[in-house]
Amino acid sequence: MAQSAVQPPRSVVTRKDVARYAGVSTAVVSYVVNSGPKNVAPATAARVLDAIRVLGYRPNAAARALKLGSSEMLGLIIPENSNPLFAQLAHSVEEAADKLGYALLLANSDGSLAKERRHLRNFLSRQVTAVLLASVAFEPDLADALSADVPIALLNQEKAAPGFAGVGVDLREGAMEAVRHLIWHGHRRIGLVMGSNVTNEADGRERGWLDALAEAGLDEGPIARALFSADGGYGAGKRLLAGAERPTAVFVSSDSQAVGVLRAFHEAGVAIPGDIAVASFDGSPESAFTWPALTTVQQPLTAMAAAAVEAVTAGARPPQPFHRIFPTQLIIRHSCGCP
Amino acid sequence: MAQSAVQPPRSVVTRKDVARYAGVSTAVVSYVVNSGPKNVAPATAARVLDAIRVLGYRPNAAARALKLGSSEMLGLIIPENSNPLFAQLAHSVEEAADKLGYALLLANSDGSLAKERRHLRNFLSRQVTAVLLASVAFEPDLADALSADVPIALLNQEKAAPGFAGVGVDLREGAMEAVRHLIWHGHRRIGLVMGSNVTNEADGRERGWLDALAEAGLDEGPIARALFSADGGYGAGKRLLAGAERPTAVFVSSDSQAVGVLRAFHEAGVAIPGDIAVASFDGSPESAFTWPALTTVQQPLTAMAAAAVEAVTAGARPPQPFHRIFPTQLIIRHSCGCP
Repeated sequence: MAQSAVQPPRSVVTRKDVARYAGVSTAVVSYVVNSGPKNVAPATAARVLDAIRVLGYRPNAAARALKLGSSEMLGLIIPENSNPLFAQLAHSVEEAADKLGYALLLANSDGSLAKERRHLRNFLSRQVTAVLLASVAFEPDLADALSADVPIALLNQEKAAPGFAGVGVDLREGAMEAVRHLIWHGHRRIGLVMGSNVTNEADGRERGWLDALAEAGLDEGPIARALFSADGGYGAGKRLLAGAERPTAVFVSSDSQAVGVLRAFHEAGVAIPGDIAVASFDGSPESAFTWPALTTVQQPLTAMAAAAVEAVTAGARPPQPFHRIFPTQLIIRHSCGCP
Repeated sequence: MAQSAVQPPRSVVTRKDVARYAGVSTAVVSYVVNSGPKNVAPATAARVLDAIRVLGYRPNAAARALKLGSSEMLGLIIPENSNPLFAQLAHSVEEAADKLGYALLLANSDGSLAKERRHLRNFLSRQVTAVLLASVAFEPDLADALSADVPIALLNQEKAAPGFAGVGVDLREGAMEAVRHLIWHGHRRIGLVMGSNVTNEADGRERGWLDALAEAGLDEGPIARALFSADGGYGAGKRLLAGAERPTAVFVSSDSQAVGVLRAFHEAGVAIPGDIAVASFDGSPESAFTWPALTTVQQPLTAMAAAAVEAVTAGARPPQPFHRIFPTQLIIRHSCGCP
């Protein structure tokens, strides 16, 4: 590529000028600008920063991106940033990306497949190094990504998707553990509050609930389907209370919904766990602060985010098949009936 | 700039090729790729997308950024993405940016000024169009931004900072309204749970609490200082209960802390609002789902985010002085003693 292609458009100050002004090598200027890979003595760094300020130097990442065919950015698409689970996931991904020197582009699909596809296309057009996608669908439309030859990691995916990296947890196994715990507490009529995904098959959490009940020879309890949100859970909780056969325990498919279920029960004067016990899924930070504190199946979000970021930035292109299922952990608190 | 500068580095397929293959004008290809500004009939869009896929075309935003001297990205720095308030703020900013065609780079400072400064420098080096900063400090270090001539908007800033756009709420006035409401309920000993900022002067919320008490001729209640987090609030709540003069009401400087205060009170068997009433600040979505639901001073985050994004993308360079204080609204729920 011609040298002209990497000239910053609005400035003629170069790294060389900064190095000369600060009395250091151009490599040292790089280390300061990029916070590495080598350390620079604080006094030297101050001199370089001063030179950058005085000269008005701006290291031109856009030019570097064009040169390298990479923008050193990762794109993250999540369904909903206001959901504490996805906020935590975004935080974990941002931290993992930052550690490896990548900036993070964040986009919300707001539960819309069309918006998800648009964001994905937009990220690809910005030449991100890789995309991390927590899709609203179990089988997202990834034709654009496939044709663009950009590594994609699917977050929160139980099943491997050919050609893509993926991380997830065993939803069924996690749900079974929670429901078994409710059964251990003596419950025989255990309901389900289930989130709605864009999918044709039952969510692993629903299968886990069913399988744990079947294993214990119990009938299916009532099901209330709702959005994966506190509002959704609130409505579902009210419907469960209004139903003919009120359950004595409920398994809820996300902490976010459980927060709403708890509110619906409190408002109706239903004691938790005395009248109805509750166990949920995710292990989000908020689950420790509900009243009573939620017994919940924790997903190891930090480890999952780090593994996904590492998988897509490892430089293998096309990406190596990579799909890792992480173990969940049942966090026992008080909503289940434990003291 | 030479034409060679805008050649995509890893592909020779151009917009022209796509237009020819799809049998449309290059303008139509643009509309499809950029989702506007004009609409394209679904059948035509499908043909263009098919051509993009078949030819492996990638509209090269990095090249366009270099040409325009803009990356069409905004950078957002927040103290902590896992805090629901900042997650909601990030969501609002992302939505406002997306509407105007900007992608959003997100970074967490994790409450560290050094990390905040590093992210800011990193964003500037990536030639973002503008930066939105919810600083951990009331007077952030913005020397880098000033020298880079990139518009900056300060989020959550009560005071105007010369040279920067800013949005915020009147913290003192909002806090006064909440404390007046607690006084109206008959409380005479009203404590404060206050977050800790990197600052030399009292937070507006603390001044508002003090001023409302003084206005009513009441003595200062006990103060517990803590981090702006549920954990911080939990510790503060326990300290208030252990203190010599237990208050009958508490004003809490953030919903996030209030969630922890409620847990501390519940655990100690303290009835809310019967034994101690609570009012807080922020009006985050989670505040509607605590038990009891929080009476809280709502910040209009969506409007603030939109105003900040509009201010920094309006194209005035250097940015016009812009500082807007938004009104808060006291949301009356049940933690204060209202039925």
